[in-house]
Amino acid sequence: MREVAVIGIGMTKWGELWNKSLRDIYVETALMAIDDSGVDHIDSMYVGCMSSGIFVGQEHIASLLADYLGCAPVPSTRVETACASGGLALRLGFMEVASGMSDIVLVSGIEKMTDVGGDEATYALGTAADQEYECYNGITFPGLYALIAVAHMDKYGTTRKQLAEVAVKNHRNGSMNPLAQFPFEVTLDDVLHSVKVADPLRILDCSPITDGAAAAIICPVEIAKKLNKPIVKITGSGHATDAIAISQRKDMTWLESTYQAGKSAYAMAGKSPGDIDVFEVHDCFTIAELCVMEALGIVDKGKSGEAVERGRTALEGDIPVNPSGGLKSKGHPVGATGIAQAVEIVKQLREESGKRQIKGARIGLTQNMGGSGASTVVHIFERG
Amino acid sequence: MREVAVIGIGMTKWGELWNKSLRDIYVETALMAIDDSGVDHIDSMYVGCMSSGIFVGQEHIASLLADYLGCAPVPSTRVETACASGGLALRLGFMEVASGMSDIVLVSGIEKMTDVGGDEATYALGTAADQEYECYNGITFPGLYALIAVAHMDKYGTTRKQLAEVAVKNHRNGSMNPLAQFPFEVTLDDVLHSVKVADPLRILDCSPITDGAAAAIICPVEIAKKLNKPIVKITGSGHATDAIAISQRKDMTWLESTYQAGKSAYAMAGKSPGDIDVFEVHDCFTIAELCVMEALGIVDKGKSGEAVERGRTALEGDIPVNPSGGLKSKGHPVGATGIAQAVEIVKQLREESGKRQIKGARIGLTQNMGGSGASTVVHIFERG
Repeated sequence: MREVAVIGIGMTKWGELWNKSLRDIYVETALMAIDDSGVDHIDSMYVGCMSSGIFVGQEHIASLLADYLGCAPVPSTRVETACASGGLALRLGFMEVASGMSDIVLVSGIEKMTDVGGDEATYALGTAADQEYECYNGITFPGLYALIAVAHMDKYGTTRKQLAEVAVKNHRNGSMNPLAQFPFEVTLDDVLHSVKVADPLRILDCSPITDGAAAAIICPVEIAKKLNKPIVKITGSGHATDAIAISQRKDMTWLESTYQAGKSAYAMAGKSPGDIDVFEVHDCFTIAELCVMEALGIVDKGKSGEAVERGRTALEGDIPVNPSGGLKSKGHPVGATGIAQAVEIVKQLREESGKRQIKGARIGLTQNMGGSGASTVVHIFERG
Repeated sequence: MREVAVIGIGMTKWGELWNKSLRDIYVETALMAIDDSGVDHIDSMYVGCMSSGIFVGQEHIASLLADYLGCAPVPSTRVETACASGGLALRLGFMEVASGMSDIVLVSGIEKMTDVGGDEATYALGTAADQEYECYNGITFPGLYALIAVAHMDKYGTTRKQLAEVAVKNHRNGSMNPLAQFPFEVTLDDVLHSVKVADPLRILDCSPITDGAAAAIICPVEIAKKLNKPIVKITGSGHATDAIAISQRKDMTWLESTYQAGKSAYAMAGKSPGDIDVFEVHDCFTIAELCVMEALGIVDKGKSGEAVERGRTALEGDIPVNPSGGLKSKGHPVGATGIAQAVEIVKQLREESGKRQIKGARIGLTQNMGGSGASTVVHIFERG
């Protein structure tokens, strides 16, 4: 297995991009990553996308996007594992480069979610849960995470205020990220009095519906050195699955797929949670960020709420989480999120994050999760 | 790169399986492959599926199916490139085993297409074409292939009767395949007088709408030897893309992605078309089989119709194509087709194909295509 580096990143402003089609958004973003890397060709490409079929009536997007990027006949592969599709695209590209099958690979993610109405978006997102046993009975994603939140509050004494602190922190970070969909701060009071979606979760506990893409160019470290680029290595990769329905899990508050994917990634990189300087994790809802911190071993079980409340996960804290603003403030075009997390970690390790820079960050981790946690992809990055 | 072998295959009867859900069909098929291989675990799995989102309202199926197969937390990846999704699942599994990342990988494909009505199935299949420039203007897949057929007839003098001969041959082969959806023979007269779908294509030129799955277990050759299984090696793999819209291609009759994917696979295996004893190719429409034969170099440009008419592609011919019955007779659950092609080639190379056995077959090739040819995956198999 060869050492793999990220040598180019691309991400454009996220939001409701009604004046751009799926292919426009993609090409713009992918070209940014290619420009940033300085390569003159790609050997292969991966596109993470959850549901272009339902959102824009278009499958076969791996070929469509290779065509519009002017890269056909290169092999182009779409991967899907709900909201972790972007992380999975990164993992497969990593495998292809590490194995020696290809040298220069474009890894990317995209979702165009706002061309449909709210009901249809809710339906599309529900296809990440168990359609026959969960959605059929009427539950939606805010409902699923609300059940997890209630269980976490009951088991560990996590408070409503602690959930809100996650949103306040992530919006504070996102206010320093010009590419974020909602780059503004919110107060504790704003969150606690925002409209209720699924008790105990309120609208400011939920990540938004977003159009956007993100892209990166990866290659063997030896080629990266020749290109004279700042090198960020991918040193760990993990991917795991869990029961699709939360009712089938032993403990609703425990994200087993995140634990397993983290374990694989830590083992490959030879690192432990305490070695990581900066985390980008899957805060699709505020409660998700708390459960993820526990499953990744960043804090002990049941201690995540307290850690956030004490400011440990803030930019200035000892375990900074989601300096980009997270899904909450940056937006959550589901298939793109996993790659956008990698884009932020690469910026942090290159020290290009401006006001939200974590000083001296050398090792970063991304955790990208599908549905209510039936899939997780984790990567570890190190400054070269 | 390690040598890779197929050591187990699974496929159940295809058709309109209204009494079985997506997960039922999948688990039954995957367990057949696992049983056939004799392995006691899998390290990873790939699922090829084109549009479970539109067909059954379920994305995130890689995790769902790992869960229902009892294999979570193994990494499970869904890949999609329209009707070539199954071939792509095989290719990624091959890469994972060849690279040394995993030893025992389940590669599989599935599609549940008959839970929706005909209009919705036509819409879902149309998402493999260019939604904004092709489908938006009203064309469907039979229409796209009809345009290709007209161009081929015009350029090379291919006849309506030659197209029909493809269907007659494939139904004759399929009549010997008990797993086929339509295991019966049709006459030239049946085809030529069947109902017109998109001139010049008639209903018996078209592959059907099907529910079904197919699965295979792959591993390094060294492990296959220890398991004392008949060994079929995968010696070549190619994947390529082309313009999504047929109007954007230089020559509508030429499948550039098939040519490119074939070229890669032949080069990796060190083989040429003349070395291959048996072909399973993507006859979604009769004209497709003709164009594929030319792009793979089995016959010269424009000579495919004549080759079929002379019986060269029949079971007893010198270049047997689609002994399984092809998509035409066996059925075409789009995500499963690429794996089912591999299942047939493995049976042929193991000499387990009964009445449709190609005598002494030692080398086989599969060609699986997405949409009107914007993606193709080609594999070459050899008896170990």
